[in-house]
Amino acid sequence: MDKNGFAKKPPMGWNSYDYYDTTVTEADVKRNADFMAAHLKDFGWEYIVVDIEWYAKRAGSRRDEYQYIPFEEVEMDEYSRLLPDPERFPSAKDGAGFRPLADYVHEKGLKFGIHIMRGIPRNAAHSHVGLLGTDKTAADIADPANTCFWNPDMYGIRPEKPESQMYYDSLMKLYAEWGVDFIKCDDICREDARSAHDEIRMLQEAIQKSGREIVLSLSPGPARIEEAWHYEKYANMWRITDDFWDDWKLLKNMFERCELWQNHVSAGNYPDCDMLPLGRIAEAFGNGHETNFTKEEQKTMMTLWCIFGSPLMMGGEMPGFDEFTMDLITNREILHLQDFAGAGRQVRRNDNEAVWVSFDREKDTVYAALFNLSDESREIILSETETGESLARSIRFSGKSMKELWGEAAPEIKEGSLMAEVPAHGVQIYGIM
Amino acid sequence: MDKNGFAKKPPMGWNSYDYYDTTVTEADVKRNADFMAAHLKDFGWEYIVVDIEWYAKRAGSRRDEYQYIPFEEVEMDEYSRLLPDPERFPSAKDGAGFRPLADYVHEKGLKFGIHIMRGIPRNAAHSHVGLLGTDKTAADIADPANTCFWNPDMYGIRPEKPESQMYYDSLMKLYAEWGVDFIKCDDICREDARSAHDEIRMLQEAIQKSGREIVLSLSPGPARIEEAWHYEKYANMWRITDDFWDDWKLLKNMFERCELWQNHVSAGNYPDCDMLPLGRIAEAFGNGHETNFTKEEQKTMMTLWCIFGSPLMMGGEMPGFDEFTMDLITNREILHLQDFAGAGRQVRRNDNEAVWVSFDREKDTVYAALFNLSDESREIILSETETGESLARSIRFSGKSMKELWGEAAPEIKEGSLMAEVPAHGVQIYGIM
Amino acid sequence: MDKNGFAKKPPMGWNSYDYYDTTVTEADVKRNADFMAAHLKDFGWEYIVVDIEWYAKRAGSRRDEYQYIPFEEVEMDEYSRLLPDPERFPSAKDGAGFRPLADYVHEKGLKFGIHIMRGIPRNAAHSHVGLLGTDKTAADIADPANTCFWNPDMYGIRPEKPESQMYYDSLMKLYAEWGVDFIKCDDICREDARSAHDEIRMLQEAIQKSGREIVLSLSPGPARIEEAWHYEKYANMWRITDDFWDDWKLLKNMFERCELWQNHVSAGNYPDCDMLPLGRIAEAFGNGHETNFTKEEQKTMMTLWCIFGSPLMMGGEMPGFDEFTMDLITNREILHLQDFAGAGRQVRRNDNEAVWVSFDREKDTVYAALFNLSDESREIILSETETGESLARSIRFSGKSMKELWGEAAPEIKEGSLMAEVPAHGVQIYGIM
Amino acid sequence: MDKNGFAKKPPMGWNSYDYYDTTVTEADVKRNADFMAAHLKDFGWEYIVVDIEWYAKRAGSRRDEYQYIPFEEVEMDEYSRLLPDPERFPSAKDGAGFRPLADYVHEKGLKFGIHIMRGIPRNAAHSHVGLLGTDKTAADIADPANTCFWNPDMYGIRPEKPESQMYYDSLMKLYAEWGVDFIKCDDICREDARSAHDEIRMLQEAIQKSGREIVLSLSPGPARIEEAWHYEKYANMWRITDDFWDDWKLLKNMFERCELWQNHVSAGNYPDCDMLPLGRIAEAFGNGHETNFTKEEQKTMMTLWCIFGSPLMMGGEMPGFDEFTMDLITNREILHLQDFAGAGRQVRRNDNEAVWVSFDREKDTVYAALFNLSDESREIILSETETGESLARSIRFSGKSMKELWGEAAPEIKEGSLMAEVPAHGVQIYGIM
Repeated sequence: MDKNGFAKKPPMGWNSYDYYDTTVTEADVKRNADFMAAHLKDFGWEYIVVDIEWYAKRAGSRRDEYQYIPFEEVEMDEYSRLLPDPERFPSAKDGAGFRPLADYVHEKGLKFGIHIMRGIPRNAAHSHVGLLGTDKTAADIADPANTCFWNPDMYGIRPEKPESQMYYDSLMKLYAEWGVDFIKCDDICREDARSAHDEIRMLQEAIQKSGREIVLSLSPGPARIEEAWHYEKYANMWRITDDFWDDWKLLKNMFERCELWQNHVSAGNYPDCDMLPLGRIAEAFGNGHETNFTKEEQKTMMTLWCIFGSPLMMGGEMPGFDEFTMDLITNREILHLQDFAGAGRQVRRNDNEAVWVSFDREKDTVYAALFNLSDESREIILSETETGESLARSIRFSGKSMKELWGEAAPEIKEGSLMAEVPAHGVQIYGIM
Repeated sequence: MDKNGFAKKPPMGWNSYDYYDTTVTEADVKRNADFMAAHLKDFGWEYIVVDIEWYAKRAGSRRDEYQYIPFEEVEMDEYSRLLPDPERFPSAKDGAGFRPLADYVHEKGLKFGIHIMRGIPRNAAHSHVGLLGTDKTAADIADPANTCFWNPDMYGIRPEKPESQMYYDSLMKLYAEWGVDFIKCDDICREDARSAHDEIRMLQEAIQKSGREIVLSLSPGPARIEEAWHYEKYANMWRITDDFWDDWKLLKNMFERCELWQNHVSAGNYPDCDMLPLGRIAEAFGNGHETNFTKEEQKTMMTLWCIFGSPLMMGGEMPGFDEFTMDLITNREILHLQDFAGAGRQVRRNDNEAVWVSFDREKDTVYAALFNLSDESREIILSETETGESLARSIRFSGKSMKELWGEAAPEIKEGSLMAEVPAHGVQIYGIM
Repeated sequence: MDKNGFAKKPPMGWNSYDYYDTTVTEADVKRNADFMAAHLKDFGWEYIVVDIEWYAKRAGSRRDEYQYIPFEEVEMDEYSRLLPDPERFPSAKDGAGFRPLADYVHEKGLKFGIHIMRGIPRNAAHSHVGLLGTDKTAADIADPANTCFWNPDMYGIRPEKPESQMYYDSLMKLYAEWGVDFIKCDDICREDARSAHDEIRMLQEAIQKSGREIVLSLSPGPARIEEAWHYEKYANMWRITDDFWDDWKLLKNMFERCELWQNHVSAGNYPDCDMLPLGRIAEAFGNGHETNFTKEEQKTMMTLWCIFGSPLMMGGEMPGFDEFTMDLITNREILHLQDFAGAGRQVRRNDNEAVWVSFDREKDTVYAALFNLSDESREIILSETETGESLARSIRFSGKSMKELWGEAAPEIKEGSLMAEVPAHGVQIYGIM
Repeated sequence: MDKNGFAKKPPMGWNSYDYYDTTVTEADVKRNADFMAAHLKDFGWEYIVVDIEWYAKRAGSRRDEYQYIPFEEVEMDEYSRLLPDPERFPSAKDGAGFRPLADYVHEKGLKFGIHIMRGIPRNAAHSHVGLLGTDKTAADIADPANTCFWNPDMYGIRPEKPESQMYYDSLMKLYAEWGVDFIKCDDICREDARSAHDEIRMLQEAIQKSGREIVLSLSPGPARIEEAWHYEKYANMWRITDDFWDDWKLLKNMFERCELWQNHVSAGNYPDCDMLPLGRIAEAFGNGHETNFTKEEQKTMMTLWCIFGSPLMMGGEMPGFDEFTMDLITNREILHLQDFAGAGRQVRRNDNEAVWVSFDREKDTVYAALFNLSDESREIILSETETGESLARSIRFSGKSMKELWGEAAPEIKEGSLMAEVPAHGVQIYGIM
């Protein structure tokens, strides 16, 4: 299997974290799956991803003290493999695991994903739980010095032990049996994660052995640009940022990260700008609210994610989305930019503005996005020559038809330059053909 | 002018540094130009570049103490612009500058390049020498805290002063008048160079104003991957390494650098692996010798530079090249890899071996290079599946014709895998069509 | 209790680590205590310290894989307090703890010390074992992200929880009941130890509450000079180096560390150069051997430790000491330097030599130590003026009686300078009165 | 000469910088010297120090652009030694140098100091000016890569050249001839100053050769604690902070620095908290104003500097001092703390308060200073036991007479504890005898 074939376009879907934190239930997942199937599937949205601690008993019950309760029970099989907490995922009882829920999602014509933490459960190591296919136990492959600084569930494994690869193989075998299509592996994509370099490779090796095309997504970021080749070799997505939330500073900062990673987007390889905090979010964080992003900021976010080629993962509770949000995420012309992910290039960036272009070579259409990063409305100008011949041989404004994709008026053209008045934190993006 | 059009393929040429250090003379340059025109031009070699301190009096005369004599006289015009030392460049006398030498090179059908240091001469600042087009002086734009740690000639300029851009404009105006085709700007491409970020942009702006297509090459490296977009926006080449010499450790290390920069090669944009220390080198360093690289290492170097897409700049004294060296640098099949620079991709790299592939999409040919980085002969295997579909849709070995480009036997194919015995530090590269 | 009164001179004793690693038994301890009482007590040697993992079952039984076996059983009481493994310490059975062994040592006229790791046992946290005086458990105060990178036994505690102080109080209460005189707390004295700053304070607070004068020694080092005041406020000794072994490079490097810490030696405050690897060592490391230090190096070590004011802790198995070693560690004149620890000052240090002086103000005697740090015999000169008036008002050579403390000839004096031929890696130290 | 004898107590004086920046004139110096002689000498104030750029023509004339005008003329002799600008120092004309001004100061019973920059004038190097006692020139010892990032006047020297020591010798010879008592050498006491380690030693060697007792003060700081022994070996004072101004954040931060350096104060060795920004300051900075410190903060500053043992250098223009300021700097009981500089020790420090004690062993008096570092009035408590026996054997409150040195009421004593209500940012200090 060619891992680049697992996801030929940037994956689009929904992830439970931004709204449900560690508390998501089977009913919550189904509700969102139903909504996606009914309203979003036609636009390309397809992944339903259950995020962190689906295996943890009483997850979220001491939220004032801990996001992740330490030393708590987890649901686990005899091979040190975590299973869904049957309290929250009733269909998982009797060892069924996520198979029933995955079936449900698949029947809707969607794909099913889960979150995992790098490593093996600490509980398994301390209790010397077994491993599939060997009489060694979790204690033999767990590395007690290899911990995650923000989550207490796992020990990193010892890559040099053959049983460590066997353990990852056993995980992917189980996930393949369940029908999992997407793995978001956490604590594996940042400076501080010891042994993560090896574990990325081991995970892909386990996926290949499983025989199922499972998209591999790495978290939490920021990913290291020095490891770019390694990510491209073994994974499909990698977070280029720490957790992203509805804060303009973080959104503005994403332009810097997209500049850095723009040459690393290609089929099967997607630097990941993280979930879209749209609609109502943060409910289980004790901070439920409608996204703090203004409408202009939301359009800026969608435009950047799409012209750059990031995966699109919804963070909010979808059933409550209002009309504006639905329009935002079902704008076919914006989403079309994902069809040629990797073609987008930054033309300019400073503290006040950013300009990106992209190219649909099949339809011979150029796209130019003018972002206003300043706090005031601002005229942004793009001249034909700035993009450069090599970037866009065909970028000539005269004699072209132009359309603003969010429904604004077409821009003014004067002497080979395109001029637009863009609102604060906003964007205008033109299709030029 | 589109700077990406200045050099549509990685520049190929000769540079005086590796052999002549600071001592190169007009006669030396002509001798090498004559040789290139007679023997190498047909293979694509065309640039003749005069490297560091062509303006410095008595350069190289105190080599036991200093590579660059501090506080020494320089040849300079009334606008703080350095001129060739007429002792070493007699045709430059009476203010002719490099015009006569450039003419000579052009008449041979070649192109002419010079080295400059970022900034303005310290001598000009301390003597308050004028600037073209303003009554401010060098003292007004020189920044006394902005120095190069390894060369004493210049002060960096103050980017915020408009006269600084005027100074760079005046330089490029003069170089355009001389007929310069290539500028290697030094002390501008590394972590420690203060204000370099701005000066890169200012140099390209000055080139654009000059009206002449002058290739802009940045030195000394290692360039910063975080600045990749900035280099691609304003320059044509940037060194991804500090000075490269004939030492296996440096050559082996280049594989790491090429991994890092492989996604940043495109028309007009060339991460630069530095000069090729071939033939006799280091003469004026007091250390004249034939290259220490073995023949295998030389083939490894040429293959890597070409499949990666680095510029090729000869470092040795060309007239003395032996037959092996001439064959090495006139292998049309190897040089052909440069025609699709940017297509090369690393498939594997570890301490013992590296594998790269590239694609000539016009001729539907795949190239696979198997490098032995270990110190012993070694069988290297490449399976069809390792390259990945997205990388190389067409990489199927069976039914293909194969040719080793350095003249070795074609490789053995077994069950979808290509196997080759590669000598220590050596390479085998196959054209598969 | 004034913690500076717990040890008015640098502690002198024996520590089980260098010879026994994690395997020391009651019989081993007694054998060494017997020897010390018989042969060394009169010279000031008095502490008998049981080092790491006296609580660990099967400690040392998988030495090829692990120094510290992860996820292994430990002996522990119902309050999460570790107890001696009764297999190795039979007298500890039935909850007697170290009381019987401490009694044995005390009866010999010696003092008894133990090693602990910062924090609370991981086993206690994962099994929710109780704490003395509260119904909270170990899981409530253990911080799963607060681990030691080289030992898997403990989790660091959460300093902000009142039960954490209660836990440390309960430890010191137990140790006081046992009759412990000396605690060597590990994983607490280095850059990487999270929360260690607070735990140092908490340990001293627990000692004060225990009502017993227990010397507090911090490990592993290198201690941070920025924390010097904090150590002096709350501890008695702190390691200024990582583990020290019988390697000249480490010994030479100790001169640099002593330079840095020399102003921080005073009554009750001893920067610690670590154990003396003398005699036979490293037995349980699978590397048993007589110290690699030459006789000259051993004298250098003893002289530096004493003139600087470091604690003296024997690392080797004492019963086998030969005559040279016994003479080395029972040289009363050298040991006398410890009586005015803190008076020593470095006069000079370079790559080839170091000179220290110290002052016995009661007896109006100056000591001058000339260390040869080079690899060849060397004449070292000390002039009266170099020491400086403020350092040594009385340091005048003429008219003084001089004696070399290791039994060498008195030095030559010429024109206010003292001259000595010192062997490679050796020392000569003069008492001048 | 023993450099520790040059200043047996922390130097007290006035420095021109805080008020005059680079513009100070002979008249200004005399006016302040007259004032000191008349009003402050009896209290121990004695140094009059001319700070930076007394040699620079037109210093301060382009203050909107530059603090230090680059590439400007300087007054210099034929041996590359800077001389006072005769425009600002008329008595210096005809090569008299600072001799006449030093005489003036000496006649007042005061001492005379000057500021220098590490290195040799750039102008001397670029013009190949001579050196005393050799036919080498400034160009031979100046290191063009060894520059100060904030001042353009000098190049650092090459320590390995014997002429470099000769140059420093020639400087100190000249200063000794002038009658200089104090050298503040700048750009020599911080992480970034290349070759500074050697130059500190070379300066002291030059002072020793000069035969004059010249106090050596190092700037700008923060000094490196790792170099403490080196400073103590070769200098008398070293700045433990970057420039200190009248800002509470800087003053609060000084407590942290004093904690770090408290063990390094002894006769002839003074970690330096920098000038006291009292009275009117910053005039020549274009920002003339009365100190921003409140009266409480001024008392806090004076108390900390004195109990710690810092030199005291007045920064403001003395003739305009008001009664409060005069009382502040002539409080004999506070200044008396300097008589036993080095005895002071921090007892406690946290974000809200700091406590220091010191001891006059001759008079058997203990001093206890209670600093309120918080922004609100606060009761601060000191118990007898907290200071520790070793620190203060005699610190018993009962039966002692107590006096608050700034004139406040004596503190309340209860059960072995001293309690005081201290105003925000303020201090109370008690003499206990």
